[in-house]
Amino acid sequence: MNALIQKFTNLGTVDAPGQEARHRIAETLLTLRGGKLPGRPVDFSHGDVDAFEPTPEAFQAFVEGIGLGGAQAYTEYRGAAAIRFEVAAKLAAFTGAPVGGGEDLIITNGTQGALFLAVASTVTRGTKVAIVEPDYFANRKLVEFLEGEVVPLDLRYFDSTDRAGLDLAQLEEAFRAGVKVFLFSNPNNPVGAVYSAEEIHGIAQLAERYGVVLIVDQLYSRLLYEGQTYHHLRQEDIDPELIVTVMGPSKTESLSGFRLGVAFGAPGIIDRMEKLQAIVALRAAGYNQAVLRTWFSEPDGWMKGRIALHEAIRNGMIQRLSAVEGIAVRTPQAGSYVFPRLPELAVSIRDLAHILRLQAGVTVAPGSQFGIGSSDSIRLNYSQDHASALAAVDRIVHVVERYRK
Amino acid sequence: MNALIQKFTNLGTVDAPGQEARHRIAETLLTLRGGKLPGRPVDFSHGDVDAFEPTPEAFQAFVEGIGLGGAQAYTEYRGAAAIRFEVAAKLAAFTGAPVGGGEDLIITNGTQGALFLAVASTVTRGTKVAIVEPDYFANRKLVEFLEGEVVPLDLRYFDSTDRAGLDLAQLEEAFRAGVKVFLFSNPNNPVGAVYSAEEIHGIAQLAERYGVVLIVDQLYSRLLYEGQTYHHLRQEDIDPELIVTVMGPSKTESLSGFRLGVAFGAPGIIDRMEKLQAIVALRAAGYNQAVLRTWFSEPDGWMKGRIALHEAIRNGMIQRLSAVEGIAVRTPQAGSYVFPRLPELAVSIRDLAHILRLQAGVTVAPGSQFGIGSSDSIRLNYSQDHASALAAVDRIVHVVERYRK
Repeated sequence: MNALIQKFTNLGTVDAPGQEARHRIAETLLTLRGGKLPGRPVDFSHGDVDAFEPTPEAFQAFVEGIGLGGAQAYTEYRGAAAIRFEVAAKLAAFTGAPVGGGEDLIITNGTQGALFLAVASTVTRGTKVAIVEPDYFANRKLVEFLEGEVVPLDLRYFDSTDRAGLDLAQLEEAFRAGVKVFLFSNPNNPVGAVYSAEEIHGIAQLAERYGVVLIVDQLYSRLLYEGQTYHHLRQEDIDPELIVTVMGPSKTESLSGFRLGVAFGAPGIIDRMEKLQAIVALRAAGYNQAVLRTWFSEPDGWMKGRIALHEAIRNGMIQRLSAVEGIAVRTPQAGSYVFPRLPELAVSIRDLAHILRLQAGVTVAPGSQFGIGSSDSIRLNYSQDHASALAAVDRIVHVVERYRK
Repeated sequence: MNALIQKFTNLGTVDAPGQEARHRIAETLLTLRGGKLPGRPVDFSHGDVDAFEPTPEAFQAFVEGIGLGGAQAYTEYRGAAAIRFEVAAKLAAFTGAPVGGGEDLIITNGTQGALFLAVASTVTRGTKVAIVEPDYFANRKLVEFLEGEVVPLDLRYFDSTDRAGLDLAQLEEAFRAGVKVFLFSNPNNPVGAVYSAEEIHGIAQLAERYGVVLIVDQLYSRLLYEGQTYHHLRQEDIDPELIVTVMGPSKTESLSGFRLGVAFGAPGIIDRMEKLQAIVALRAAGYNQAVLRTWFSEPDGWMKGRIALHEAIRNGMIQRLSAVEGIAVRTPQAGSYVFPRLPELAVSIRDLAHILRLQAGVTVAPGSQFGIGSSDSIRLNYSQDHASALAAVDRIVHVVERYRK
């Protein structure tokens, strides 16, 4: 039983974004400086779907799904065939490379479900997996739970503004040393950096040379700011069985409450993912799958408007944060995360997160969740009410000043 | 990679109920006798939610959940606290033993999700797990995927009508030989047998003596026929950390399209399950969780009426099946499965299942899915339109006659 206990200790969700309600913060253990700052509470740990609402069409599609009765409730484990074919055609158009609805795509319980199934279908005890630091906090946990071996890669995201900052020589060294799977998010979560054409091409070439499976989490790839270009890994001319792409409508589209995601590409891996989904959850909720019919079919101008609103918040956040001495921040090219590096503080980043909740009514994700080198940073999801988000950043800056070393 | 491929080969879903749409039956490989039998097609692999519809209240609760916006979309990983407390109180009343909403319960992606999380939180490489044969087909797959060791137990379900047929001496022998987890369904799926008070008491006593965790799948425990008594394992006076109970509203309540389940009991195990759910799916779909508010709060007389309708179909099925020479069948005490043992046939049970689809428009689950000793049986879920189900049984009998050895 000890091996099991250890496995779950490593999984720890205590500091995971969204779990703050389960914290019992011992105020007395924190060295509080100053009093509470007034203002509307903001939870930067995830997007606010009350500020950026789901499309009305999504709910309508759900109702139509219910109307179909048993045919929609009991789909194949990989999802309803008709919906898979529709979504596959849209994803082929979006990513610029073919996607078959029959064998190339699975509908999952959110993008998290897609990531779990993809990793569990390619990683087993001892499999070496390259993971970027910083990157989405669950990536490392997934590999550790499956008893794979994490091979960390640096993302030098402060070094430039037109590439994410991956060191391709370091990547090749990892592949040469036996890495079998490379798992990364693009745009990067938490930094909002987009991999350049050269980086994507280099990753693909190395994967083909060394036979490495690439799992790319493109959750935020639709929320691309003015003037940015996105390069889809799937367009690279390598064996399709080496690329699994993960996406979903939980973020930009605000449909997280429906728990929908997809993985597509590599038919052999998708087939294993379906077998695993059958014992993990059977399928994504049948009625909910119908909501995917609205994906990539939003009303004219809707996505453009949503991006513009996020860009305006981003600009306000960056302006405020970069004005503070000792705070370093890279301007996100896509997505709704910003990942400022803070000056040296008198408290740990975990304690700072607790203090921010107590004194500023602000919830943030401590950087330590995203990689061991990021314990001086915090992640903010700024898909929030514009004015409240900016006021909350002012409070964060205020608290940082209080605890500056 | 070979270990991984093997793991997924064992997971095989080809013959799993519900996956028939993915079969490409090679008709030419089957030795067909006689022509097609006319009649309305019936899919006995799962219940027909068009014949037995979800309660209208369920949809209304979903709509109210959507109305709550972000608060319902983003719940704790273990589910919305308010809903957990409501459901916990109802489950305490139903099972006759306390359930705390705070630490004792998790909302999952269907009962399948609850089973996966419970097993993955207690079983690791080499853990010995006792599994009843026959029992729900995914139980064995879950253990094998986690690299546990299955220790099979016989269910002598034809030996009596007032106990399920577990051999407590065999169970003790298994526990003494190092079994750490015992996973079973009650009522048994596929037989519909209910464990007697003496069996349940014996299981609990042995579990306490040997420190074995009991995972009991009570999915069908509400659909109990006239005159039957159900004994909740949770009422046994042993360490609560040894019992995890799994339930959900997917079957009797016809809410499978919402993918909702719960596990409750053992707070230490529930805690691990939540950590795992965080990386497997984050949470059960937020809006869907709201549907659980209607569970155990169905309109007056609704459940009673639903049970009576199922009992009538059961009686018709049993009458027809038991009239055939060479077919042996135990009358289900609960649930909506019947598991007839067929006479010796000229074709395998897998081929029979294919032939039934081709010649009789009937989908059944081959018994081989439920245990190695059951390759002479088929499972029928008779939660179907009454007349269509009985007509389909007549066609099954007709085909069985054609292929009798």
